[in-house]
Amino acid sequence: MNSNSRNLNAQELASFCRKKGFLYQSSEIYGGVSGVYDYGHIGTLLKKNFQNSWIKYFKSLHENFYEIQTGQIMHERVFKASGHLENFYDPIVEIEGQDETFRADHLIEEKLSQRAEDLTIDEMKELIVSKKLLGDIDYSKVKITNLNLMFDVHMGPTKGTKAYLRPETAQSPFVNFKAQFELQRKKLPMGLMLIGKVFRNEISPRNLNLRTREFEQAELQIFFNPNTLNEKHNKFDEIKDIKLPVKLVNSTTDNEVEYKSVEELLTYGVHEMYAYYLARVFLFYRDVLKLNINLRFLELNEKERAFYNKMHFDIEMKMHSINKWVEIGGVHYRTNHDLSSHEKESNISMTIQDEARQEKVLPHVLELSFGVDRNLYAIIDQSTFINEENNQTTMHMTSKLSPISVGIFPLMNKEPLTKVAYELKELFVEEDIETVVETSGSVGKRYARNDEIGTAYCITIDYETIEEGDNKDTITIRNRDTQEQKRVHKDEVVGVVKQLLRGKISFEEL
Amino acid sequence: MNSNSRNLNAQELASFCRKKGFLYQSSEIYGGVSGVYDYGHIGTLLKKNFQNSWIKYFKSLHENFYEIQTGQIMHERVFKASGHLENFYDPIVEIEGQDETFRADHLIEEKLSQRAEDLTIDEMKELIVSKKLLGDIDYSKVKITNLNLMFDVHMGPTKGTKAYLRPETAQSPFVNFKAQFELQRKKLPMGLMLIGKVFRNEISPRNLNLRTREFEQAELQIFFNPNTLNEKHNKFDEIKDIKLPVKLVNSTTDNEVEYKSVEELLTYGVHEMYAYYLARVFLFYRDVLKLNINLRFLELNEKERAFYNKMHFDIEMKMHSINKWVEIGGVHYRTNHDLSSHEKESNISMTIQDEARQEKVLPHVLELSFGVDRNLYAIIDQSTFINEENNQTTMHMTSKLSPISVGIFPLMNKEPLTKVAYELKELFVEEDIETVVETSGSVGKRYARNDEIGTAYCITIDYETIEEGDNKDTITIRNRDTQEQKRVHKDEVVGVVKQLLRGKISFEEL
Repeated sequence: MNSNSRNLNAQELASFCRKKGFLYQSSEIYGGVSGVYDYGHIGTLLKKNFQNSWIKYFKSLHENFYEIQTGQIMHERVFKASGHLENFYDPIVEIEGQDETFRADHLIEEKLSQRAEDLTIDEMKELIVSKKLLGDIDYSKVKITNLNLMFDVHMGPTKGTKAYLRPETAQSPFVNFKAQFELQRKKLPMGLMLIGKVFRNEISPRNLNLRTREFEQAELQIFFNPNTLNEKHNKFDEIKDIKLPVKLVNSTTDNEVEYKSVEELLTYGVHEMYAYYLARVFLFYRDVLKLNINLRFLELNEKERAFYNKMHFDIEMKMHSINKWVEIGGVHYRTNHDLSSHEKESNISMTIQDEARQEKVLPHVLELSFGVDRNLYAIIDQSTFINEENNQTTMHMTSKLSPISVGIFPLMNKEPLTKVAYELKELFVEEDIETVVETSGSVGKRYARNDEIGTAYCITIDYETIEEGDNKDTITIRNRDTQEQKRVHKDEVVGVVKQLLRGKISFEEL
Repeated sequence: MNSNSRNLNAQELASFCRKKGFLYQSSEIYGGVSGVYDYGHIGTLLKKNFQNSWIKYFKSLHENFYEIQTGQIMHERVFKASGHLENFYDPIVEIEGQDETFRADHLIEEKLSQRAEDLTIDEMKELIVSKKLLGDIDYSKVKITNLNLMFDVHMGPTKGTKAYLRPETAQSPFVNFKAQFELQRKKLPMGLMLIGKVFRNEISPRNLNLRTREFEQAELQIFFNPNTLNEKHNKFDEIKDIKLPVKLVNSTTDNEVEYKSVEELLTYGVHEMYAYYLARVFLFYRDVLKLNINLRFLELNEKERAFYNKMHFDIEMKMHSINKWVEIGGVHYRTNHDLSSHEKESNISMTIQDEARQEKVLPHVLELSFGVDRNLYAIIDQSTFINEENNQTTMHMTSKLSPISVGIFPLMNKEPLTKVAYELKELFVEEDIETVVETSGSVGKRYARNDEIGTAYCITIDYETIEEGDNKDTITIRNRDTQEQKRVHKDEVVGVVKQLLRGKISFEEL
C-alpha cells in the first residue's frame, strides 16, 4: 500500500464484490431475494479458503476435536428445549396503516447511539415515543410486537409435521453430543466443529452480507468437565504473555481497545480455560488470517449476554467501510444449559463418566462461534485498497486466503510459451494450489486484474525462458504486495511457490 | 478380501453406518426427523473426500469450469420459470379414513415390478384398482392426488413474501449464468459447478440416505454453443476406445449391462460432446473412486425422461445391500430449455456472443448430476466386507476416500514412543493428510478398528524404532488390503505415505 491508497466505503465495497464476482444477491435476475446471497467463483474460492483454514487451525488445537455435518431441518422439540420457540424473537415496530416495519432496537441504536439489546419491549416503546424517534407522527398508532425469527417447514404427505430450519448451528452438536461421545474416545474435553448454513427471518436485512436471512456459521463447541474450568491448561504457558485487544466490563478506561495479557485477564474474573481459548482465537486472526489490527474482544455485561452465558466476549472487527465495530464471532461459556435442557426434553441422560477424574458429570460447553459471511466481509473490508492516483484496486490479503494463489502468464498467446504455462498449471493442480492461466491483454493488465482479487503471486513465461542464455529455463515470479520480480528456474517454481505459500521462505530470501 | 468375506445386507449396512458414526438420523434423541440425516465425524471426512475429489476431477476437465456456492432459498419466480411450481408433484395414494399414504408409482413398481414413472395419474389409478394393489379394500375410497414436493418459506416482517427451498441445485447455475459469463472469460463452453443442499418433501423417505428430504447434490452445468454439439472434442481420441457399461434404449440384448466403446455409442445417436463427457464420468468412477464394477449408464426413452431432455442416461450402481440398480446420478442434455425459460420469465436476454464462432447464441446445457449422499451409500455398499470367519468388517475403499489416511500407533502409551507419534502427526497435518493417533488396546485391535473404517495405512512405532540396531529409526507401515507390513525410515515415512496416497508408488515397490 502506498500513501495514495485508501480503503473502500460501503458502497464501493458492495460494487467491488459484485464487479469481481465475490458475492451478489441470490436470484439476481428476478430482483433478488432479500437477505440471501450467492458467492461467485472468486467468492467461493475465498470462502473455501476461510473454511479450510478455520477447520485446520481449530482441529489442531486438541486431538479430541471432531468435525460433523448435520441436517439443517431439525425437530420441533430441539427448539422447544433450546428456548428458540419461546424466546427467539425480534422487536418489530409497526405503524398502523403503513407497510414498512422497523427493528425497534436498531432504531434506538441508530438514532440515539446507545446499545438497545438489553431493553425490554416496554422500555423500547417508551424511548421511541418519548424521543419521537419516528419523527412527527401519531404515536398512538405505533405498536411494538415480537416476531419469531425461525422459518418453519411443513413435512410429510399432508404437510402436517412441523419442523424448523435451524437458526444456529450450535443445536446440532448439542443433540449429537451423546452419540459422538460414545463413538469417539469417551474422553473430555471433546470438541465438535461444524460449518453450516443457518436461517433467520431478519426483518431488515442490510449491509451486504452482514445481516442476512441465510448465512453460514463455523462453530466449535467444547464439552468439558466443569471441575477443570480453573485448572491450568497444559499449554497455558505458551500463550500467557500474549497481549489481547479487549474491552472489558470492568475496565478503568473509556478506550475502544486496551491490551491485556492473557494472564492479566484472569484477574478480571476470566477462567483459565476461557482465557486459553480466547488467546487461541486471537492467534487464529493474527497468525492465520493476518487480521489482528482492527480486532477486539468486547466483554458483555450480565444484562447484555444471554441468561445462560456465564461469560461472553464478542469478537469484533472495526470495519473501514462502515466505520463501526461489527460482531464477527463470539466466545461463550454456556455452562450446562444446553445439555441439561435437552436432557429434560428428551429424557435421555447427557451425564457421562469422565474417566480421567473418575467422576460422573454433565459437561459444560465453551462455544467458539464465527459468522463465515461476516468474516469474509471483514477480510474484504480490511484488505482492499484503492490507489487514488491510478484508480487501481489491490487486495492485500494473506496468501492462505487468496482466491487464486498463482496467476500464470505466457507473455504471448503462442507456443511454446502456452505449453509451458499449461504444464506448470498441471503441476500446481497436483499440489492443490489454485491457479489461473491468463493469455489475453498486456502483462501489466494481467497483473492489475490479479491484484484486484488478491492473487498472491504471478509468474510470467517469456522468450528468455525458452531461448538460450543466462535466463534460459527461468521464469519471473512477482510479489503482489511489493511488485518486486525475481527469476526462478522453471523446474523449481512449483516448489518455491509452495514454500512461499506456506510461509517457509520469504520473497526476499529468493 | 478373502473367500469368507461377503457384502452387507441393508440392515447390516444401516447399523454399521450408525455404529461407526458415518451417518444416523438427524435429531436422533427426539426420535429423528424422517428423511434427514446427520454425518458423524467419520462420515463427514468421507463426504469431504468425495466432494473434494469431485471438484478436483471435474474442474480439471476444462479451464473454463468454475465453482459457485449459492443461496438455498430462491425466488418464487425461479420455480415459475423452471416449471417446478406447476409440475414438481408426486402421485400420492390416499385412502379415505386412513392416515397412511403411499407413493402411487412406488406401489406399482414394487407390486408389479414395472417402471411407473412414465404413467399418468389416471393410468396409475387404473392399475392400482384393477390389480387390487392395496389388497382387499373398498377401492371407491381410494384417491390419487398430486403433492408439490417443494418446501415454501415465508419471509419478512409479516411473513408475507413466499420463497422456496430449492429442490435441485441446477437452478442456481441457470440464474447465475449471465453474471458468471460476463465475470469470466466470456467464452463457451463454460461450466458452473455447485455442491449444495436441496430439499424435497418426499412422501416416504426410505433406504437410509437413498431417499431423503434434505440431501446434497454435486452438479456441473456445461453451457455450450449448440452448433458445436457434433464437433469432435479435441480430446475425443483420448477416450474413444474406452468401453462403457451401458444399457441402451435400442439395444439388441436383454442384458443388464453391455459394453460399448465411446465411439460405438455415436452410432446409437449419442452426440460427440455427450459421449465425451459420459466417458469422463466413467473415468471419474474408474480412476478416482475405483467404483466401476457394478456401474452402468442406463439410457431413458422419450417417455421416461423429462420433456426438455433430449438425451438422458442415469448413472446407476447395483447395490449389494438391496440387490437393485440405484440411480446415483445422471447425464442430461437439457437443450436451451432452462435459459430460454428464465429469459422469458425475467425478460433478461440470455443470448451471448460466442467469440470463437462469431455468432450470437442462446447456449444449450449439458448437466452432469450426482447425488452426494447416494454416492456415499454406493461407496459404503461396494467397499464394505464382513469376514464371516472372524466377524471382522473391512472397508476396501480407495485411499483417496479413506476418512482417515493414516493410523499412528505407538506400541505402548509411553514416552518416547508417543512423542515420536505426535511429532509424526504434526508433519502429516502440514501435508493435509488426515491421521489419528491411537494409544489404547493391542495393536491388533487398533488395526481391526481402523480396517472397519477403511484407514488406508497404519504405522507403528515400536521399541526397535528407538533402540540401537538394524531397525533403529524405522517404523512399520501396514497395507490395509493385504495386511502386509514393511519397515520405513521415520524421516521418510511422511513422504512415502504421500506417494502411496497419490498412487505414485505401490506398496510392493517399498
